[in-house]
Amino acid sequence: MRVGRRETFNCAHRLNNPAWSDEKNKEVFGKCNNNNYHGHNYVLETWVDGAIDPETGYVLDAKILKDIIRKHVTEPFDHRNLNLDVPDFKNLNPTAENIAVVIWNKLRAEIPNQFKLSIRLYETENNIVEYDGQ
Amino acid sequence: MRVGRRETFNCAHRLNNPAWSDEKNKEVFGKCNNNNYHGHNYVLETWVDGAIDPETGYVLDAKILKDIIRKHVTEPFDHRNLNLDVPDFKNLNPTAENIAVVIWNKLRAEIPNQFKLSIRLYETENNIVEYDGQ
Amino acid sequence: MRVGRRETFNCAHRLNNPAWSDEKNKEVFGKCNNNNYHGHNYVLETWVDGAIDPETGYVLDAKILKDIIRKHVTEPFDHRNLNLDVPDFKNLNPTAENIAVVIWNKLRAEIPNQFKLSIRLYETENNIVEYDGQ
Amino acid sequence: MRVGRRETFNCAHRLNNPAWSDEKNKEVFGKCNNNNYHGHNYVLETWVDGAIDPETGYVLDAKILKDIIRKHVTEPFDHRNLNLDVPDFKNLNPTAENIAVVIWNKLRAEIPNQFKLSIRLYETENNIVEYDGQ
Amino acid sequence: MRVGRRETFNCAHRLNNPAWSDEKNKEVFGKCNNNNYHGHNYVLETWVDGAIDPETGYVLDAKILKDIIRKHVTEPFDHRNLNLDVPDFKNLNPTAENIAVVIWNKLRAEIPNQFKLSIRLYETENNIVEYDGQ
Amino acid sequence: MRVGRRETFNCAHRLNNPAWSDEKNKEVFGKCNNNNYHGHNYVLETWVDGAIDPETGYVLDAKILKDIIRKHVTEPFDHRNLNLDVPDFKNLNPTAENIAVVIWNKLRAEIPNQFKLSIRLYETENNIVEYDGQ
Repeated sequence: MRVGRRETFNCAHRLNNPAWSDEKNKEVFGKCNNNNYHGHNYVLETWVDGAIDPETGYVLDAKILKDIIRKHVTEPFDHRNLNLDVPDFKNLNPTAENIAVVIWNKLRAEIPNQFKLSIRLYETENNIVEYDGQ
Repeated sequence: MRVGRRETFNCAHRLNNPAWSDEKNKEVFGKCNNNNYHGHNYVLETWVDGAIDPETGYVLDAKILKDIIRKHVTEPFDHRNLNLDVPDFKNLNPTAENIAVVIWNKLRAEIPNQFKLSIRLYETENNIVEYDGQ
Repeated sequence: MRVGRRETFNCAHRLNNPAWSDEKNKEVFGKCNNNNYHGHNYVLETWVDGAIDPETGYVLDAKILKDIIRKHVTEPFDHRNLNLDVPDFKNLNPTAENIAVVIWNKLRAEIPNQFKLSIRLYETENNIVEYDGQ
Repeated sequence: MRVGRRETFNCAHRLNNPAWSDEKNKEVFGKCNNNNYHGHNYVLETWVDGAIDPETGYVLDAKILKDIIRKHVTEPFDHRNLNLDVPDFKNLNPTAENIAVVIWNKLRAEIPNQFKLSIRLYETENNIVEYDGQ
Repeated sequence: MRVGRRETFNCAHRLNNPAWSDEKNKEVFGKCNNNNYHGHNYVLETWVDGAIDPETGYVLDAKILKDIIRKHVTEPFDHRNLNLDVPDFKNLNPTAENIAVVIWNKLRAEIPNQFKLSIRLYETENNIVEYDGQ
Repeated sequence: MRVGRRETFNCAHRLNNPAWSDEKNKEVFGKCNNNNYHGHNYVLETWVDGAIDPETGYVLDAKILKDIIRKHVTEPFDHRNLNLDVPDFKNLNPTAENIAVVIWNKLRAEIPNQFKLSIRLYETENNIVEYDGQ
């Protein structure tokens, strides 16, 4: 049984590899390399796999899941600049893939080990990533 | 090849464990424990896995799938109170997880065995469960 | 300039006219007349019309609008039975139309008079109402 | 007859009134005042009112409408920082309301005068504005 | 008070003006002029304006509205070729605008005169038209 | 890590098995057998599985993925009649399942072998298929 919870957050970001020249960055990242940042409404689905607790009928109470996500992801990320305001991206390019890895690691540390964890992250309605730790 | 069909139904329900005190129920289920019920527009995706029939080009005709879902799930559930009107929940707490198990069992009995079956159930746009019989 | 804010709430309800016989109620309201209630995920859009405040660039701060909606509509309605738990529907049939009138009146009392007010209420993805006080 | 066209663009922005103290800005704009910007996936609906041309069956060819929107709005706005990269917001706070006024003025200059023009702009799925020049 | 009902239908169509040369048609209608047709999932919203009936709490029962729409629009249009199978388009180019006029006229003939009528028709998620008889 | 890209295309099609009688085709395919075709707005999600490239932070640049999809799928399919204009369906019934197999094969030939590939195809909002080559 898998349980999913949807939350949203809004950030500025910029894609850039500091080891590359400006030309190379422009060529690879295009508009996403814009010096002054751009931004997205991110949609995060967090999925937890486990057995149903017969006493509650829940795998994991959505309120508990929501509180973990809000405390560890949406509070520190929402209305921030990922490159400048979120330490995890100080030396990590904030592509949707890398954001997903960072979020998964934060959530994995908080969600009890008996539950498998995977996430889906929408950067736009057309660009989506999924990560389950592998 | 997996084939999915989306159907909807609208129910009242209430979360409660009769073995617990009112205080414990209020504490665990919060607003979902409201004595007089609340309700949802449920969205059900039913997914069937199998080979394509070379004569039809279908895995399973969506009309057949739709008819099974309507007869065994949406007809008996739609515009009902899950706790009071649907016998499956007489002694089972109608969490999204338990509703998914009940629906999966009903559909599994009707869908030919050569097809794997899984379902996704949206309780709200933010709360989702998936079940494939395990 | 019109500004809209989307909020959601989940309720049980039942359509019934106590002045009619059971047969008449069943005939007119069909499945919506179910004795034990059914329910919906309501989606409410609240729209406010006015001039832009040159100091803030807002017509009305979405936070203020959100707080009014939550305090006067979603808090008292969410996870309730409209017929039994919300006094406004004690003698009023909770059709989408009547719910919209009740919500509009509650919001009108709270939103400053220089702003025109209208609402859109989705009962399901297929059934929608709009009301602007006329 | 009204014809609508949906387009999207993704920007960083920050809400701030330079005439105010930092404290006042923080108090009024909250998280939206973040120094390092945040961002959104904006969704723009452009609506044009007019008669059907009997030769084409169109009010205004969606391709023409799309080209005007892309050239004058989505190209100069997409993947930019509204405050720093878009001259229109050099001295104008980029609230959804002000963005809508700027877009409407740009489109009004390009769309033939026999057509009425209005726009709807989604900043998030919950915050929406509409503007028709009044 | 306005009441809206959403229904869908799926059609093939082709845009063409028989008074024009093939070159002119290709130039004006582009890909939509394809000889062998293309197709869409149309989404129709039908909106009815009127007073609430105090006995039912309805402006117009959504069941009645649904039955009118299905009988007069979705039944004759769904899974058809608009140009070849629907007589209304024998001499009328099936642009979204013209489809909206045809649908509005069909519905206007069936919906009691005390109700104002308007429709919104989505040809794709990006192309939308609205018509209210004017 | 899985990366998904959403694209859309609009086609006419007709379901028919030429080895069967007209009666049998009508019985099995119903409205989908309509002689003059009908059509859909197809939504295609393309999912690619692989490791994150540490230099870019991408699994596969969405621009590259988009260009492959547009060149090999949406360009040749969009605004066409699948039965008449797309050679792949000359002798293959264009059910959603068969369309998914054709698309998957086209994309598999273009996407580097180190990436696993799967697709999801929406024929309507209610009918969906998924295919990963097995």
